[in-house]
Amino acid sequence: MVEVAFQGERGAFSEEAAVSAFGPEIRPLPCRSFPEVFAAVADGRADYGVIPIENSLTGSIHRNYDLLMEHGIHIVGETEVRVSHLLLALPGVRLEDVRRVLSHPQALAQCERTLRTLLPSAELVPVYDTAGSAVILREEGHRDAAAIAGRRAAEIYGMTVLAESLEDSPENYTRFLVLGRKPVVPEGPAKTSIVFAAENVPGALYRCLEPFAARGIDLTKIESRPLRGRRWEYLFYVDFAGSVHEGRCRDALEELRGRTTLLRVLGSYPRMAR
Amino acid sequence: MVEVAFQGERGAFSEEAAVSAFGPEIRPLPCRSFPEVFAAVADGRADYGVIPIENSLTGSIHRNYDLLMEHGIHIVGETEVRVSHLLLALPGVRLEDVRRVLSHPQALAQCERTLRTLLPSAELVPVYDTAGSAVILREEGHRDAAAIAGRRAAEIYGMTVLAESLEDSPENYTRFLVLGRKPVVPEGPAKTSIVFAAENVPGALYRCLEPFAARGIDLTKIESRPLRGRRWEYLFYVDFAGSVHEGRCRDALEELRGRTTLLRVLGSYPRMAR
Repeated sequence: MVEVAFQGERGAFSEEAAVSAFGPEIRPLPCRSFPEVFAAVADGRADYGVIPIENSLTGSIHRNYDLLMEHGIHIVGETEVRVSHLLLALPGVRLEDVRRVLSHPQALAQCERTLRTLLPSAELVPVYDTAGSAVILREEGHRDAAAIAGRRAAEIYGMTVLAESLEDSPENYTRFLVLGRKPVVPEGPAKTSIVFAAENVPGALYRCLEPFAARGIDLTKIESRPLRGRRWEYLFYVDFAGSVHEGRCRDALEELRGRTTLLRVLGSYPRMAR
Repeated sequence: MVEVAFQGERGAFSEEAAVSAFGPEIRPLPCRSFPEVFAAVADGRADYGVIPIENSLTGSIHRNYDLLMEHGIHIVGETEVRVSHLLLALPGVRLEDVRRVLSHPQALAQCERTLRTLLPSAELVPVYDTAGSAVILREEGHRDAAAIAGRRAAEIYGMTVLAESLEDSPENYTRFLVLGRKPVVPEGPAKTSIVFAAENVPGALYRCLEPFAARGIDLTKIESRPLRGRRWEYLFYVDFAGSVHEGRCRDALEELRGRTTLLRVLGSYPRMAR
């Protein structure tokens, strides 16, 4: 059984992502922080790690881009999870008993309009984690409060579902990366993630994208992050369709190498279906 | 006297940025949130607004990119502030009296190593704001606690400086944008900020950078943000050297317009000296 590290309590959306990537038969390793997920994979305590990398509404989780650069870890897969929030309570608690709603600040924000209709006078209480809000109700036995978390948290902690689909925007998806110690050779449609830096001269980024454009290779994402110690210079994280095992992608990377001051392949992996 | 809105308490680093942009004779308008700063400029309560847009260590303040898109506000200037943290206390309090250190979580993190040497047993207490931590000491009269904030907060609240340059990394700069209701015509070296979206086809971003590369126009920043309602598609925020009043920049923008599905100029403004 594969052991998969993720940030958050049991039942977190990252655990849903781990199940979506590996199936229900995983041994979950909940971690307190993202650096701990990277460390668990690096030192072998976990076979794989799963980290969120971007949300369709709020954008990238930039801290995890920085951690990809700091660790010699490989990206071996990606998966996405529709973020659907449930209103959870201890069994027997009814909607009209709820005076307080606990969850991660971002989840509370994502459900703000719905909550105002459903529970106009309830106090919103920010806590450290979505699944963690269910843990608090369970451990402290609150019968005047509800938690906002995902379906997996509801099942793990045996909570009653008072309401479903609380999120104000249904287009709420999070994309996750799967991390491993060894690179994989993807079969079928693949994606590759790289990071590079270029000389700080006019046209430098344009020249770095040229090897891909010339070969019709589709860039699916570009993200810039500060280059430490070089004020207002940047690292570029780029995802493209294709694998380093394909000739045209290898050629593009070879050409790119000559135009960069730093280039690292973070991984080629199966591309998720749309 | 110009009235300048910024997020945070009096003495915040954003107020330092406002003074750096407009000189010491400003009427400061502290706001609780970034949207409130945009609103204060839009409805005329303030002449200008000042918002942080990126930090040299932690990267962009992405929320403010989204707000630039949501509001019809113009960027009319930029400035940068060296983020230097001071250890502040009420007059008469000595370093050996300090049991707790209050500040914004990011400031506490940025001073972690120094604090461990200086005050190894002090408790670190996260609060909502750097300057706000000085306000708390002042209002609640704590004589066993210190605050971490900037020099301006020390002066405004009449605090004693127990230690200077607490930040672990000296390369800690924040770049701020100045917002106004009307565009300006910059004299001398200029910078322009734009936002665009392109068709989701291979080579699209490359083709959007081409009009600048072909004219030797230097891109100083590119940032991607989610395009709402189009999962895993992006808006690109680009800064380039030059002004919309220069022919070659106007030509580049004209050419770019034909390659984008959306293009907006956020402003041309004097480029800060390096």
